[in-house]
Amino acid sequence: MLYSSTRRAFVIALLIAALGAGAERAVAEASDPLSSWNDGAAKQAILDFVKTTTDSSSPNFVAPEARIATFDQDGTLWVEHPIYSQVVYCLDRVPALVKAKPELANVEPFKTVLSGDREAIAKLSTHDLEKILAATLTGMTVDTFNAEAEKWIATAKDGRWKRPYTELTYQPMQEVLSYLRANGFKTYIVTGGGQDFVRVYSRRVYGIPPEQVVGTAGGTKYSYDQDGKPILTKEPKLLLNDNDAGKPEGIHFMIGRRPIAAFGNSTGDQQMLEYTGAGEGLRLKMLVLHDDAEREYAYGPAEGLPDTKVGTFTQDLYDEAKRDGWIVSSMKNDWKRIFEFDSAP
Amino acid sequence: MLYSSTRRAFVIALLIAALGAGAERAVAEASDPLSSWNDGAAKQAILDFVKTTTDSSSPNFVAPEARIATFDQDGTLWVEHPIYSQVVYCLDRVPALVKAKPELANVEPFKTVLSGDREAIAKLSTHDLEKILAATLTGMTVDTFNAEAEKWIATAKDGRWKRPYTELTYQPMQEVLSYLRANGFKTYIVTGGGQDFVRVYSRRVYGIPPEQVVGTAGGTKYSYDQDGKPILTKEPKLLLNDNDAGKPEGIHFMIGRRPIAAFGNSTGDQQMLEYTGAGEGLRLKMLVLHDDAEREYAYGPAEGLPDTKVGTFTQDLYDEAKRDGWIVSSMKNDWKRIFEFDSAP
Repeated sequence: MLYSSTRRAFVIALLIAALGAGAERAVAEASDPLSSWNDGAAKQAILDFVKTTTDSSSPNFVAPEARIATFDQDGTLWVEHPIYSQVVYCLDRVPALVKAKPELANVEPFKTVLSGDREAIAKLSTHDLEKILAATLTGMTVDTFNAEAEKWIATAKDGRWKRPYTELTYQPMQEVLSYLRANGFKTYIVTGGGQDFVRVYSRRVYGIPPEQVVGTAGGTKYSYDQDGKPILTKEPKLLLNDNDAGKPEGIHFMIGRRPIAAFGNSTGDQQMLEYTGAGEGLRLKMLVLHDDAEREYAYGPAEGLPDTKVGTFTQDLYDEAKRDGWIVSSMKNDWKRIFEFDSAP
Repeated sequence: MLYSSTRRAFVIALLIAALGAGAERAVAEASDPLSSWNDGAAKQAILDFVKTTTDSSSPNFVAPEARIATFDQDGTLWVEHPIYSQVVYCLDRVPALVKAKPELANVEPFKTVLSGDREAIAKLSTHDLEKILAATLTGMTVDTFNAEAEKWIATAKDGRWKRPYTELTYQPMQEVLSYLRANGFKTYIVTGGGQDFVRVYSRRVYGIPPEQVVGTAGGTKYSYDQDGKPILTKEPKLLLNDNDAGKPEGIHFMIGRRPIAAFGNSTGDQQMLEYTGAGEGLRLKMLVLHDDAEREYAYGPAEGLPDTKVGTFTQDLYDEAKRDGWIVSSMKNDWKRIFEFDSAP
């Protein structure tokens, strides 16, 4: 009896192993994991990198726990033009803010935002924008903020495509996220945008849980409400400015180890890619180049495209990328489609 | 042909599901997952909590992605008396520090530490200790720090048991960590100790990866070394004081959602347990009471034990625990053994 049950367990274990390996192969071979990418250097670089770092017989093999991949969000995973979606959120919050604090109605920059004058709003200074961000992103409990942001992200629509912002993620990059995860990578968003804001939809939209979102973050303050219930209130105190040098600093703080792959699209991602590349062993560094005015937008002075303050891609960054073997992926040439709702390739 | 291969895939899927469920049950029933715990209210509370939150037919069911459990380290997962292990590390680093900066040899508090006079060292003020911590935990690159701390933790030994500090983890709590993980929980350390310090050994010692360690943390600064290679340098700038109210604040910052289970042992964990308990649905809150002078230590004024500055457990905390249904686990009565090297139960 003992023998037969042990033997049965052994046979079951063998079956599981065989079926497991078979299923894995089946999934891997089932279809092209990067089907929205045109064949070319960028697509091949991703496929080669994943193959060699996950092949235990390869000198480039990386243990599963060290397979950390970081992705900028704005301009890398979803549309950032004409302006970051989170800024639209903050502007959209101003009427409710003024309703709660009527004394702001005649105070700038809130007065201009309330006027609805798009030209005047577009001319607001960085300092004015910071005032609006602080007033609409702090001062409430984290639960209240989450509820407000969730409601907005579920209903607000982009002006060009008339679709929810969450449908404006890049299908080729979604495929990279899925492909990396299917190969044992842990995928992180490392965004200059608000950490709390992105966490509201990261799981649903990217399959990335809140704890794998690193972003610009303010402090919170623990206290008790009138019923004695513990609450956390968002404070206007910057803890992490997750842009430029703040990206590797934030990665060290939040993740504690160096990524082996990093994806970005602007000078704000430069240090993250440098830091990723400075580790030992093979590393994947990729920049998305917005050169497709027809299907999305075209900006960045590299290759003669117009300059921009939203997602700046300088000639210096382009030169560093070329010099150090980073992949510059052209949306126009490398991507079969931009969005999931574009016709399937 | 199409039909048969579809049908074959379906049969395989059924088989995998059936075998998977069977394997899971087999593992769960294989042996007592909390074998170092005496039968009693504390052990039963853990077993009941895990059973009801992971049973999809239970009203207390929690989706796997929300199964977040947080553990204090010092005094909850390993020995904290007579003094936190990390403080010993910092004191041990002083000779190397003075070798690199000889001008410190005659400056207090370094002079006292160098003297080796244990009584004088024990009398150093908090301010003096902070100077030593800042001088030994900051100013170097994160890679240098990791190498120094790794070397120390591999060789340094506790004075009482003459064993590496990493062997002084509590076996019953290690079992709780494993049991929770086997049931789909994500386990975090949320420590007042240094985040970078604990991350050096967290995977090896607790099975917890660096990114799941939240601790007291300073900022880092991104720059380039003389060869142009990117480096991160540890700065004496406090970003997160992960004690008291800092624990829920740190949890929100680093994890972004509320734990459903939290474990601590002192007033430094009070707010973490309150915050955990204030969420909707069933929550597990547990405090470890150090009441076993023979096998470990006995301290905290609760139940007449002596007070201490290291792991303070006030009568107020004890009263709050009893009032709000937190479990107070007695090391003396609830734990069959303290360490793995104690004779097996």
